[in-house]
Amino acid sequence: MSIEQRLKDHGINLPDPPLPVANYIPAIVSGKLLFISGQLCLDRGKLKPEHIGKVGQGVSIEQGAEAARLCAINLLSQAKGAIGNLDRIKRCIRLGGYINVGEGFTSLPPIMNGASDLMVAILGEGGKHTRTTVGVAELPMGAAVEVEAIFEVE
Amino acid sequence: MSIEQRLKDHGINLPDPPLPVANYIPAIVSGKLLFISGQLCLDRGKLKPEHIGKVGQGVSIEQGAEAARLCAINLLSQAKGAIGNLDRIKRCIRLGGYINVGEGFTSLPPIMNGASDLMVAILGEGGKHTRTTVGVAELPMGAAVEVEAIFEVE
Amino acid sequence: MSIEQRLKDHGINLPDPPLPVANYIPAIVSGKLLFISGQLCLDRGKLKPEHIGKVGQGVSIEQGAEAARLCAINLLSQAKGAIGNLDRIKRCIRLGGYINVGEGFTSLPPIMNGASDLMVAILGEGGKHTRTTVGVAELPMGAAVEVEAIFEVE
Repeated sequence: MSIEQRLKDHGINLPDPPLPVANYIPAIVSGKLLFISGQLCLDRGKLKPEHIGKVGQGVSIEQGAEAARLCAINLLSQAKGAIGNLDRIKRCIRLGGYINVGEGFTSLPPIMNGASDLMVAILGEGGKHTRTTVGVAELPMGAAVEVEAIFEVE
Repeated sequence: MSIEQRLKDHGINLPDPPLPVANYIPAIVSGKLLFISGQLCLDRGKLKPEHIGKVGQGVSIEQGAEAARLCAINLLSQAKGAIGNLDRIKRCIRLGGYINVGEGFTSLPPIMNGASDLMVAILGEGGKHTRTTVGVAELPMGAAVEVEAIFEVE
Repeated sequence: MSIEQRLKDHGINLPDPPLPVANYIPAIVSGKLLFISGQLCLDRGKLKPEHIGKVGQGVSIEQGAEAARLCAINLLSQAKGAIGNLDRIKRCIRLGGYINVGEGFTSLPPIMNGASDLMVAILGEGGKHTRTTVGVAELPMGAAVEVEAIFEVE
């Protein structure tokens, strides 16, 4: 099944790629690698109130996982903007997940799963990636989650 | 001298590669690059009590450096699981080190040296890598250190 | 216009590449990718007092942006040390920006722009990169900003 078809089956209508908020660009293809800038958990370009703040301190685990899922959707949206057709993606190589955390909150993997699960749901076997998940002190705009990606394209 | 031989000379018996704790995979080869997921300072699959918590606030510099060394061993273990024979590693290109720190603790390089020194001890000249070391707010399971890697393989 | 010429036009005299403070190296070329270790905001090898500490808590936005600019200059300095001539750089693929932040400070993009704007000023169209910006708990030596880079070279 194609990646574009899986998006439809999951009822995901990719948003317009969020514009970078400063002097950089969202995606670059170098050789077979597609690098995507860190994406915040914007929902159609806006941070929902429940996705602002620290997970484990205002933002719940469920809200954090949904925030990570939104980051993944934005990564795919940027990928599509860069390469035109998501079926050119061979696989997701790496996700870097940055979780905005309250002190003492260490259940980071379930949050990041929101992004990982979406990649596997949409890219299938090619969605299985390496990843690094860390808890950070702050994120731009107070976002709860930011995720960056490297894809392999053909 | 071979990499496998150096492991023996250092008395390092690689553990079984730690399993990812969620929906992702530990390693991917893309072209000549081998990406490894962030590895926690697990010792044969378990976090020792002295490797849980914040360096400079409960975890000492020596314990932190040992934790980083364990991350490096787990990276090599994952590399071996992915490519079969560590002698296929041409060099370590990059280590990304995330240190779980207490407020005001800035002696991060000596901690990360635990990982860097092991890479050079085991990979020799090919173990000399670029690296980035930062102090983070929290890590999965409260681990003191997490390190990710990119290797070049042939 | 050449990259070396643009440096002159901007009055930037690249410092000697800062030496790594531990057992790693500043730069590695693998294929067409040039990886540079995370660079602190050293000014000719020293951290100025105003670039030590947390942005939003002692370090101002302007000082933070200047610190990020210094990181970018050090990245170029390391690139030159590694490849000899900056005109071999085809483009900057990725900047990873780590901002040492005080609690509640979320205006991270304007800080990181100090690095991004310098890359575009010096590399021109090839300076437009992907980037990830996060706020961290601590950085080596208490530096306000650390930035790492991947370039594409020919």
